[in-house]
Amino acid sequence: MSKQAQPTDRPWDAYLGEADSAVVTKGKFGRRMGFGQRPAVVVIDAQKYMVGVADDDAAWPSSCGESGREAVRQIGRLVEQAQQVSVPCFFTLFEINPNGTDMGVYRLKRDLLDSDRWCLAGTLGAQMVPELTPSDNDVVFVKKKPSGFLGTPLLGYLVDRKIDTVIVVGGATSNCIRATVFDSSSYNFRTIVPQEGVFDRIPISHAISLFDMDRQFADVIPMEEVIEYLRTLPAGQPASEGS
Amino acid sequence: MSKQAQPTDRPWDAYLGEADSAVVTKGKFGRRMGFGQRPAVVVIDAQKYMVGVADDDAAWPSSCGESGREAVRQIGRLVEQAQQVSVPCFFTLFEINPNGTDMGVYRLKRDLLDSDRWCLAGTLGAQMVPELTPSDNDVVFVKKKPSGFLGTPLLGYLVDRKIDTVIVVGGATSNCIRATVFDSSSYNFRTIVPQEGVFDRIPISHAISLFDMDRQFADVIPMEEVIEYLRTLPAGQPASEGS
Amino acid sequence: MSKQAQPTDRPWDAYLGEADSAVVTKGKFGRRMGFGQRPAVVVIDAQKYMVGVADDDAAWPSSCGESGREAVRQIGRLVEQAQQVSVPCFFTLFEINPNGTDMGVYRLKRDLLDSDRWCLAGTLGAQMVPELTPSDNDVVFVKKKPSGFLGTPLLGYLVDRKIDTVIVVGGATSNCIRATVFDSSSYNFRTIVPQEGVFDRIPISHAISLFDMDRQFADVIPMEEVIEYLRTLPAGQPASEGS
Amino acid sequence: MSKQAQPTDRPWDAYLGEADSAVVTKGKFGRRMGFGQRPAVVVIDAQKYMVGVADDDAAWPSSCGESGREAVRQIGRLVEQAQQVSVPCFFTLFEINPNGTDMGVYRLKRDLLDSDRWCLAGTLGAQMVPELTPSDNDVVFVKKKPSGFLGTPLLGYLVDRKIDTVIVVGGATSNCIRATVFDSSSYNFRTIVPQEGVFDRIPISHAISLFDMDRQFADVIPMEEVIEYLRTLPAGQPASEGS
Repeated sequence: MSKQAQPTDRPWDAYLGEADSAVVTKGKFGRRMGFGQRPAVVVIDAQKYMVGVADDDAAWPSSCGESGREAVRQIGRLVEQAQQVSVPCFFTLFEINPNGTDMGVYRLKRDLLDSDRWCLAGTLGAQMVPELTPSDNDVVFVKKKPSGFLGTPLLGYLVDRKIDTVIVVGGATSNCIRATVFDSSSYNFRTIVPQEGVFDRIPISHAISLFDMDRQFADVIPMEEVIEYLRTLPAGQPASEGS
Repeated sequence: MSKQAQPTDRPWDAYLGEADSAVVTKGKFGRRMGFGQRPAVVVIDAQKYMVGVADDDAAWPSSCGESGREAVRQIGRLVEQAQQVSVPCFFTLFEINPNGTDMGVYRLKRDLLDSDRWCLAGTLGAQMVPELTPSDNDVVFVKKKPSGFLGTPLLGYLVDRKIDTVIVVGGATSNCIRATVFDSSSYNFRTIVPQEGVFDRIPISHAISLFDMDRQFADVIPMEEVIEYLRTLPAGQPASEGS
Repeated sequence: MSKQAQPTDRPWDAYLGEADSAVVTKGKFGRRMGFGQRPAVVVIDAQKYMVGVADDDAAWPSSCGESGREAVRQIGRLVEQAQQVSVPCFFTLFEINPNGTDMGVYRLKRDLLDSDRWCLAGTLGAQMVPELTPSDNDVVFVKKKPSGFLGTPLLGYLVDRKIDTVIVVGGATSNCIRATVFDSSSYNFRTIVPQEGVFDRIPISHAISLFDMDRQFADVIPMEEVIEYLRTLPAGQPASEGS
Repeated sequence: MSKQAQPTDRPWDAYLGEADSAVVTKGKFGRRMGFGQRPAVVVIDAQKYMVGVADDDAAWPSSCGESGREAVRQIGRLVEQAQQVSVPCFFTLFEINPNGTDMGVYRLKRDLLDSDRWCLAGTLGAQMVPELTPSDNDVVFVKKKPSGFLGTPLLGYLVDRKIDTVIVVGGATSNCIRATVFDSSSYNFRTIVPQEGVFDRIPISHAISLFDMDRQFADVIPMEEVIEYLRTLPAGQPASEGS
């Protein structure tokens, strides 16, 4: 049986104890939001610098390695299914100007890496992974910070299409996915994270972020369940008001 | 004496009467915000589609005509002076995807114009006017809606440089300038509109928008006064934190 | 025939000429957005300080006078009709802390007025007008700046109820209404301004703001048409997701 | 030697291995942002429902227990020191309307708890803890979602006071603190988390959130170091522009 078919396979279970479960039960945390009627898929930073190249990850300073490449395959399946029923997909690209003028305090925290395999605008690393192909119904846009919402037109795109459910995939789980999930649920979209569709560089950060999100801000569920939901939708899903 | 040297030359005076002045006086509206210590210049949509071409405006559906072209000359003076003292300039470009998927309800209000002299991404009309040249210290970015702040990274750029004063120029006065001014003063930046640096297609909309902004949200003052202020600043103004 | 029954009675017509109309025609401005399926009403600053008291306006420094009081009556009709079909109404209250610490640069532009008939939190002037009564389905919240969206939870409330159409009423037309309309249409809500439901202190600012909004950002239409639209809706309109 | 005096006492060290450290080193993550010149303190949800009552935590459904109460003591020290040098403190209060109309999708995830020891507006649980006393220079405001920035006036308050450094304390670490830290650093404020000033219900979520934030978005440092920094500031720190 494939990994994604096992809803009980929760990456965080290994890290938690009974006291933690008692907190969740007492506070009534962790119920299911459930799917709404009009979903959109938001693909966060599915770019070459995030997933590197097999057997050459050392040359890619921000690569999430094999876990990223496996997630990209899963994201490909999700995007394909979404496109078949005209569910809109929004692809963010994280890009920094090569001269660093748009990097802000992140430059203090991390440094401006001088590499064409990082996320500098115009370089190899900033390109979308070739496994994903936006359709005419989809929108691609640049973001400058972790969240797909902050400082971008995403919110207006979702309102325009009357979206009520946001499916978030991409990476990294503990950074951009988590920031996007905070914003998505804070703006009151039902928020879904297919767990095989997100990835991170650090296993425990990945697992505990999934746990934290599932507890309060999103349904973290198997990719198979999400794809099955999309399959049940009638074709001809929400388009832009003006089209 | 040139127009910009006359602070008393207010485009709105011709439209207003004594009853209107009494309202302003009674409510204590219309005082001066004044300049702060760390200004930035925000140039809104100084693109070819906004100003057309002399003797050929009929071919440019959104051209503001000669008033736009004259304002661009004034903006050029402002930007040059700002660059001399390293005051950062931010240039917005209004672009719509040619397939209209990012246009939202504006498409209902206006229609998607099929012209390379409008603001479609990748067309002639969407290019910045050649009179303006961003420096390495400046940032250019795309916006999808009237305000230079909404759905863009501008706010973070200003915080990063510790800006306290935003000088807004470009067009059109009653649309994108006014929306940007609302946001700038709402986020508590001292907001300055040099009146020769903004322009509109419709004279009364221009004049009354200037009046409304000067009354509540910005200082609408002569360009010469703004340039003089920039001249008095020490060189080496606010750079990005990380640089 | 009552004023609101005449769609052709446009307050701005008296101010405009043929050259202005030609600009609107050439740019294809000013089409109708039209109503969507799930409206909400946003009532901006319908507070005592905004409308004063008949025969005593001199004592109310920000009163819009009789035009405000007449608009409040119209807003009352709209809110009542909305409540009958469970269309949610959101009421903003503009409040400034009496010590001015939350006023920001507006204090430089205008001054902190020392009056209990202005908008200081806790004073008489800050109270909602008694003609309006929020229902259990409605939400009242404080705002600190012109737009009902900026720095408030409004956007999330609208997403939660799957709103696609925002009907904006209250005052003043050239300040808070206009800022709210900019944000509403920028987030891609169909935006409707019933012209008898908005008001201003200055007649020309009112008229030209209506013209500018109708040209680009909202449908400015007779109140009667909006109430008629609400009448046609089935009862049991959008509630919060969680309820 | 007291806990806060040991910069090397990192709650996350016990959970991480060499492979994780190698990722941090390779990506050049985790440098120090450092302090700027104009700090503010943001106290997140220091309310009774968050910290419960000693020996009675079972009656408080969202209490973080003793770890919360100890953090409140530390926050008290920080706030007191800030107030001595006029560094502004902003206190958020998380409140839900008792009828749940402002709760949005969080109601699906968690449920509306019927208890006066939770965060319902007007109840005991929603009150600020008595250990903290805002000064006249400080601002208290309500928020509806995890981040102190989203849907609140906080950003404008910070711009108004020309803040460049945001010190975030309160709870819970993996929810509201983390969301606030994402927004603070995304808007380009240097962001500081004094590790004894934040708390959570779940130890591993607390520890790994601190690790994740310190790696990318904030400096997680000992409280003592932050208080020492405040001590070195000249009195008469940033006030509101208008005051």
